[in-house]
Amino acid sequence: MTPGVPALLAAALVLGGCVTTRPAAVTAAAPAQQPSLYATTWTYGSAEAAALGLQAYSALTNYVAGRLPALQGAAPFESALVTGIDGAGRPQRALCTAAMRAHPAVVLDIDETGLLNSGAQYYAAQGHPYDEAEWARWLDDRAAQPTPVPGAVAAIAALRRLGVTPIWISNATNSRRDATVRALAGAGLGDAVPLETLFLRDDIAPGSDKQPRRLNVAERHCIIAMVGDQVGDFTSLIDAGKPPLASRRAAAAGAYAPLWGQGWFMLPNPVYGAWNTPEATLEDAVPQSLRWHPKPQ
Amino acid sequence: MTPGVPALLAAALVLGGCVTTRPAAVTAAAPAQQPSLYATTWTYGSAEAAALGLQAYSALTNYVAGRLPALQGAAPFESALVTGIDGAGRPQRALCTAAMRAHPAVVLDIDETGLLNSGAQYYAAQGHPYDEAEWARWLDDRAAQPTPVPGAVAAIAALRRLGVTPIWISNATNSRRDATVRALAGAGLGDAVPLETLFLRDDIAPGSDKQPRRLNVAERHCIIAMVGDQVGDFTSLIDAGKPPLASRRAAAAGAYAPLWGQGWFMLPNPVYGAWNTPEATLEDAVPQSLRWHPKPQ
Repeated sequence: MTPGVPALLAAALVLGGCVTTRPAAVTAAAPAQQPSLYATTWTYGSAEAAALGLQAYSALTNYVAGRLPALQGAAPFESALVTGIDGAGRPQRALCTAAMRAHPAVVLDIDETGLLNSGAQYYAAQGHPYDEAEWARWLDDRAAQPTPVPGAVAAIAALRRLGVTPIWISNATNSRRDATVRALAGAGLGDAVPLETLFLRDDIAPGSDKQPRRLNVAERHCIIAMVGDQVGDFTSLIDAGKPPLASRRAAAAGAYAPLWGQGWFMLPNPVYGAWNTPEATLEDAVPQSLRWHPKPQ
Repeated sequence: MTPGVPALLAAALVLGGCVTTRPAAVTAAAPAQQPSLYATTWTYGSAEAAALGLQAYSALTNYVAGRLPALQGAAPFESALVTGIDGAGRPQRALCTAAMRAHPAVVLDIDETGLLNSGAQYYAAQGHPYDEAEWARWLDDRAAQPTPVPGAVAAIAALRRLGVTPIWISNATNSRRDATVRALAGAGLGDAVPLETLFLRDDIAPGSDKQPRRLNVAERHCIIAMVGDQVGDFTSLIDAGKPPLASRRAAAAGAYAPLWGQGWFMLPNPVYGAWNTPEATLEDAVPQSLRWHPKPQ
């Protein structure tokens, strides 16, 4: 192994059950030494990330199917939409009226949830700084060759067969509405109708907080489940004013913990997100008490 | 934003619903520009990775509980252990004998599946090359302050209440057996008994392929489900002789796809693994047809 190979590479030989029958990686160019490299190659190129997509969407489909009898029953029906936190710190889930219950829906994010932006991240991971005009061109080009997250196409089809409407809420620019509609359709995710089943950034309300759009959807639909790759796709309350580890504790806390996999379905995205804005340091991610180095013996 | 901030950081502002109320990251030292940085900070410090842990373990618990009636019934019972591929490319799942069915089990990996190696990865992500002696010292130190993957403790407790035995199969060195036993117990994951409910590297058979150990466990137990962070934790067939994208296609293919989330439960680990050994390049991860750059207009 060449000098300077990150510790983790070799650690994998011990921990990872290294399979050595794989041919040497094709090296069209030297690997970019970018902090996003492993996150990028794993997210777009690993079997494991594909498995996580299939797993999340399988869980979504089974959960939604399992909730339909209750939807059609007489008892109050709790949606997956959290509207606040009560005095005891518990998330309050909106109840669905009879009118809403006639229009069940699942709310999904788009980027790295429904669609994979492999092409743009291949470019970005070579060290190209973000450029708004370039990203808009990606959205245009993507429309002709979109890639769905593994599991998404089958799940969307299953939802429709169950009479449940997929509704996309994304912070992609609404200057590329048509391209986004075409990308979703081209990827096999069906026909999205702007301001009915597709809500982009600044739709309904200005800015990137998704709660106004979720509340808008909830006026007409019973939101049975939600799917995303960042906590902001589910609630704006977990990130509210917290540093990253506090968000992590909040997400794992008793109040929210039961929602993960039971109404809220997460896809993996270690490449970008609010968790990394501003860029997280190792000190952000690993609390003091867990930081380690080998002690002199 | 400072020059040279990776494109993805700024992309997150658009895509990620950026919350700006978070205080600036503490910078005890300049962020390490290592290819593992984002993967590391996300895996150990993000709410999203915690949510994925809770989601996987919630799914595991519900799946196992749902399978128990069939386990106690009369019909043949398919385990989660795949023993081969048939002529049509379908995974063959071992059937459980009556004797095995009296001893239901779940097989789990340890590193980044049951336990988080936050401390060692904090160290590694600063650019320290792998050192076997240092890693052994981590295993020793970890025993005193182990960190479970979110969701694992509750799931292990639930399995035991259901009468299902957790069995750990790990490629950690069996020179640190006692330390590993203490780490599992200290993390709240219960008491592991070497060569009964704990199988380390080179146990049963030399090397890192886990199938001999899985087959050994299956002589005494009905393996209802499996949990891991790499495909080798589930089957040795997906990685067999393939480059990374071929493994990804195999894992997502019709034959294996139904297993993810339905017997096979994946935890996210973009930090290390066989998928990154040797280190994956962007060309490995993104097939030619998806590679993109903004075209001159």
